[in-house]
Amino acid sequence: MSIERIFAKRTERMKASEIRELLKLLDDPSILSFAGGIPDPALFPAKDFADAMASIMQTGSNTALQYSVSEGYLPLREWIAGQMAKIGIPCETDNVLITSGSQQALDYLGKLFLSPGDTALVSWPTYMGALGAFNPYEPRYDQLSVDGNRAATDYAHEAKAAGGAVKFAYLSVDFANPTGETVDLRGREAALDMAEELDCAVIEDAAYQALRYDGQDVPPILALELARKGDLEACRTIYSGSFSKTLSPGLRVGWVVAAKPVISQLVLMKQASDLHSATLNQMAVHRVAEQRFDDHVANLRTVYGQRRDAMLAALTKHMPEGVQWTRPEGGMFVWLTLPAAMDGAELLVYALEHHKLAFVPGRAFFADRSGGNTLRLAFSCATEVMIEDGMSRLGAAIRETMT
Amino acid sequence: MSIERIFAKRTERMKASEIRELLKLLDDPSILSFAGGIPDPALFPAKDFADAMASIMQTGSNTALQYSVSEGYLPLREWIAGQMAKIGIPCETDNVLITSGSQQALDYLGKLFLSPGDTALVSWPTYMGALGAFNPYEPRYDQLSVDGNRAATDYAHEAKAAGGAVKFAYLSVDFANPTGETVDLRGREAALDMAEELDCAVIEDAAYQALRYDGQDVPPILALELARKGDLEACRTIYSGSFSKTLSPGLRVGWVVAAKPVISQLVLMKQASDLHSATLNQMAVHRVAEQRFDDHVANLRTVYGQRRDAMLAALTKHMPEGVQWTRPEGGMFVWLTLPAAMDGAELLVYALEHHKLAFVPGRAFFADRSGGNTLRLAFSCATEVMIEDGMSRLGAAIRETMT
Repeated sequence: MSIERIFAKRTERMKASEIRELLKLLDDPSILSFAGGIPDPALFPAKDFADAMASIMQTGSNTALQYSVSEGYLPLREWIAGQMAKIGIPCETDNVLITSGSQQALDYLGKLFLSPGDTALVSWPTYMGALGAFNPYEPRYDQLSVDGNRAATDYAHEAKAAGGAVKFAYLSVDFANPTGETVDLRGREAALDMAEELDCAVIEDAAYQALRYDGQDVPPILALELARKGDLEACRTIYSGSFSKTLSPGLRVGWVVAAKPVISQLVLMKQASDLHSATLNQMAVHRVAEQRFDDHVANLRTVYGQRRDAMLAALTKHMPEGVQWTRPEGGMFVWLTLPAAMDGAELLVYALEHHKLAFVPGRAFFADRSGGNTLRLAFSCATEVMIEDGMSRLGAAIRETMT
Repeated sequence: MSIERIFAKRTERMKASEIRELLKLLDDPSILSFAGGIPDPALFPAKDFADAMASIMQTGSNTALQYSVSEGYLPLREWIAGQMAKIGIPCETDNVLITSGSQQALDYLGKLFLSPGDTALVSWPTYMGALGAFNPYEPRYDQLSVDGNRAATDYAHEAKAAGGAVKFAYLSVDFANPTGETVDLRGREAALDMAEELDCAVIEDAAYQALRYDGQDVPPILALELARKGDLEACRTIYSGSFSKTLSPGLRVGWVVAAKPVISQLVLMKQASDLHSATLNQMAVHRVAEQRFDDHVANLRTVYGQRRDAMLAALTKHMPEGVQWTRPEGGMFVWLTLPAAMDGAELLVYALEHHKLAFVPGRAFFADRSGGNTLRLAFSCATEVMIEDGMSRLGAAIRETMT
């Protein structure tokens, strides 16, 4: 038999990602890789987690190893509510759901809003994991523009013509994966205006928010909406946060903050899909966050900020004429645009073979598979020496393949 | 705004479960509860997990706290492959996917197979978490009969008339939640025959398999199919296992064994929905399982077996004429059938108020919401004294409300 024959239609939209295939290369230690957008494990608060787990297992193992509620561990939800208040989003614990990383939040939000043929507005490029999370719900994508280039009526008209409605605008707001760019205040207000006019939700992916190296914090979209409306229950913005870029990705702990009807439905979804996020993990993240989240993040900012500086300096030094790149104020990524005639995937093949160098070609970040002449560089796991070496190799590879 | 208005249609099928609401009662220590189908935390291998985690955090924290592959932690997949071989299912690690508990496997399998209007065959009653997991994919349910009462053509005809096809038969095979009953060899072969004729998959939920207290092991359906076909890649049965009933539910570690095309698609699904199950948790489960899975399970069998015996004895002693119950050979549950005129939910209200006693009314386990005169009793967390007391209260409540 060929069991694929009876798979649901939605599986046609679920394909292997380039990043995933690329990550397999990281096992080859001879390759200098700027591909994986992962935190530097040397910066994990490992001792703090070890202590927290030892303490939890000594006094609370019956709780840590047992089933728990789908909403998440209450003390952690309380701590998160406190953090949210600091960034302009005072909320109750009932506005907070713990997820298994922010990837799960994106899956749930696709499941919550998207019927086949509905439209999701995303930037071109956008986080490819968001496209992966939404794809099983068979949406159509349209290119979100927050600079006033397109009117809400235009989006609505095309969504209707495609047989659905615009259900949400998805924005990775701070130092986005893959571009490293931040949606400025005007862009956030414009996204909100657009959502009001379309009567759709806004998904605010704030996974990198804590990792700012310079410049000024921009208020979250949810904070802006809350300032307009005065009541979180009247807000259409759904905020997704994560401990993956600050404390640990491997423990899989993230969160969603939204109006209670959204949280209630997501809780039912979580109950049906994996019951709850691992209890011990939530307890350990709570302890470490409570004890030293701010100190730890301050250290990350210093170290990653130096790497960002090193990468921007090395790009200036080594990139040939015609190559452009972003200047991120935080996060883990710089986004490179090659001359229009070049292709990032072809460059990768060449760079791997001739320079033992890896990065992520940009096309996979575009819902329409455009952007062939772009690529993503991650600086989070590279020392300054590696960055200088790597950008030198990249410059050579580009020059050698430029036509 | 009312954001529910733009939720996807599938959310209409996602409702709060009675069990969930009931579990909130467990916080009241004055209530004697047989409701929660959870392991006794006093039996958790807490010391072993504490040691495993301390060791992992000392030498492998960079791995334990970092992102890992969607397939799961390789040494754990290898250990599981070894266990599967012992029960007649020799397989490769590429046939094994780690999931966040078996609940996630059910969600993924619904997502893999079910388009709206497709048919899922389930027993009447069945695990309510399976209905919860499948519901978002908007299936139709039909009552699976493995005793030859209905022909495959009959199922196929009705599925087609409903606008879809039979995509799978779901069976909780050993000491099922909620009935405690086991599908015998003849039933398993019949399910397989039926699936062959319908050209559909079989989902074998083996969450309780390790917890047998007497009687003979029955080969898994996947082992029977493998014996027929000689090649796992030709098999349509998908086996779902869990560490939740043996080592710890709170760590959220389960697994799926199936042909590689199924596993490959599930890996893509996992990548898109939560990237991977928590790394530390998989490493810790691997260490504890490798060191003392069999010893630990032997102890569980002894303790839970005594509780099962105590409950059956107490039921014989306290139940009035007209009440029937199952005699499970393992697991955590006994299933009670009241006289036809009685209602389990009404009995619960009465028992809570007058006898401070809790259990789960049976209706939620029926896809057609029949079975009003049934209820589920869990003996896993009750001492023999509590069981004697509880069944005495239950007998009184039934007698007092019998008409």
